[in-house]
Amino acid sequence: MIVLKLGGSVITDKDRPETLDAPALDRAADAVAGASDDLVVVHGGGSFGHHHAAAWGVSVDSGTDDVEGALAVHGAMTTLNRVVLARLHDRGVSALPVHSLSVGARNTDGVLDLPLAAVDRMLAESFVPVLHGDVAATAGEGVTVVSGDELVARLARHLDADRVGLCSTVPGVLDGENRVVDRVSSLDDAALGESASTDVTGGMAGKVRTLLELDAPAHIFDLDGLPAFLVGETPGTVVD
Amino acid sequence: MIVLKLGGSVITDKDRPETLDAPALDRAADAVAGASDDLVVVHGGGSFGHHHAAAWGVSVDSGTDDVEGALAVHGAMTTLNRVVLARLHDRGVSALPVHSLSVGARNTDGVLDLPLAAVDRMLAESFVPVLHGDVAATAGEGVTVVSGDELVARLARHLDADRVGLCSTVPGVLDGENRVVDRVSSLDDAALGESASTDVTGGMAGKVRTLLELDAPAHIFDLDGLPAFLVGETPGTVVD
Repeated sequence: MIVLKLGGSVITDKDRPETLDAPALDRAADAVAGASDDLVVVHGGGSFGHHHAAAWGVSVDSGTDDVEGALAVHGAMTTLNRVVLARLHDRGVSALPVHSLSVGARNTDGVLDLPLAAVDRMLAESFVPVLHGDVAATAGEGVTVVSGDELVARLARHLDADRVGLCSTVPGVLDGENRVVDRVSSLDDAALGESASTDVTGGMAGKVRTLLELDAPAHIFDLDGLPAFLVGETPGTVVD
Repeated sequence: MIVLKLGGSVITDKDRPETLDAPALDRAADAVAGASDDLVVVHGGGSFGHHHAAAWGVSVDSGTDDVEGALAVHGAMTTLNRVVLARLHDRGVSALPVHSLSVGARNTDGVLDLPLAAVDRMLAESFVPVLHGDVAATAGEGVTVVSGDELVARLARHLDADRVGLCSTVPGVLDGENRVVDRVSSLDDAALGESASTDVTGGMAGKVRTLLELDAPAHIFDLDGLPAFLVGETPGTVVD
């Protein structure tokens, strides 16, 4: 069982609102079609979700009760999701959409309740569930953002995943001289790369922190490394 | 708390594939905008979902593992759902979509597991969840149909609804002379109307059977009766 995150910055042009990076998405879809393990895909928002979330001031802990704002984010993300699904279907992948807005809810402490009955059954029926960054109803906040990274961590635990992959815009965690670190086993290791990569991903240290807490080994790589990851190799940086 | 079903035949032109009955939907949306109680809306498939389900041979107990078939039904239903949401938003209703494909799953006995954390939280945050007939992953079947009526019964129980309303193409359960029966308290009463109404709704007796099993009183009425139902009156037939 593999949980694969396709970074929003990888499959979209992050500088232009709601613009796909179509060649990158095609490469990602080609790689996913070549996977032989059971697979759950999560994609980020890139230039689809983030612009709207910023415009409406919505984040993982600050929400809106305005349905227009909620659906600006959700609608942009489902549009991107439909495109991702279409590219996968073109390649024979039996991908089905799962929208967190329909499933999830946060309580007053921000804890996300995300019942995964549909994901479990889709996998048992040999479908590939495709989730995405989204919004979800949240106590006292209307709706808040549910991030793709949050979904990856939740899915990896729930499914007892064998491997977790984050396909990013950088080839791995970078050290002070922009070289890929092979392995990160503690936050001290991750701190090596933080200064070099913060500009690119915004939150590599945060991603590493989350990944270190998982039981499954997690791999951070770029599009060049994705095919290798999906056939069991270890491109980029392994976090475990 | 009210659970309202808008029949697919009411809001679509059932004889023409994927064709809206726009004036009827506008009237329904006007009525929903006038409701003061907490509300969950479920809409049927009408000419959106049913044509595709029939073409792919998909029903509540017979499925397909072809993702094209699954998404033909699901995609048509989410298209209809977006239109329903838009009409509600135009009238200031804070409606949010809930897709059963993302949430639900049937086991080998056909029993639907449908965790409702998102619906509960949406209601607590003063949104109006809008569900619809859909498909859901099903053990051994790929995906099968989840009917709007099934969702209504599930929601009424889960939410301990005060009232359930089925907005139909007929003004209520009809007797042998096409007169609306005021009250149905047993299947014997329902049998009165079955012969007269079967042609119109296809399954009035089945609907009545399901409604009799609910704790909440259920009302069957047409578009003319919808505004009255939503302000607490008792148009059409009450089933309890």
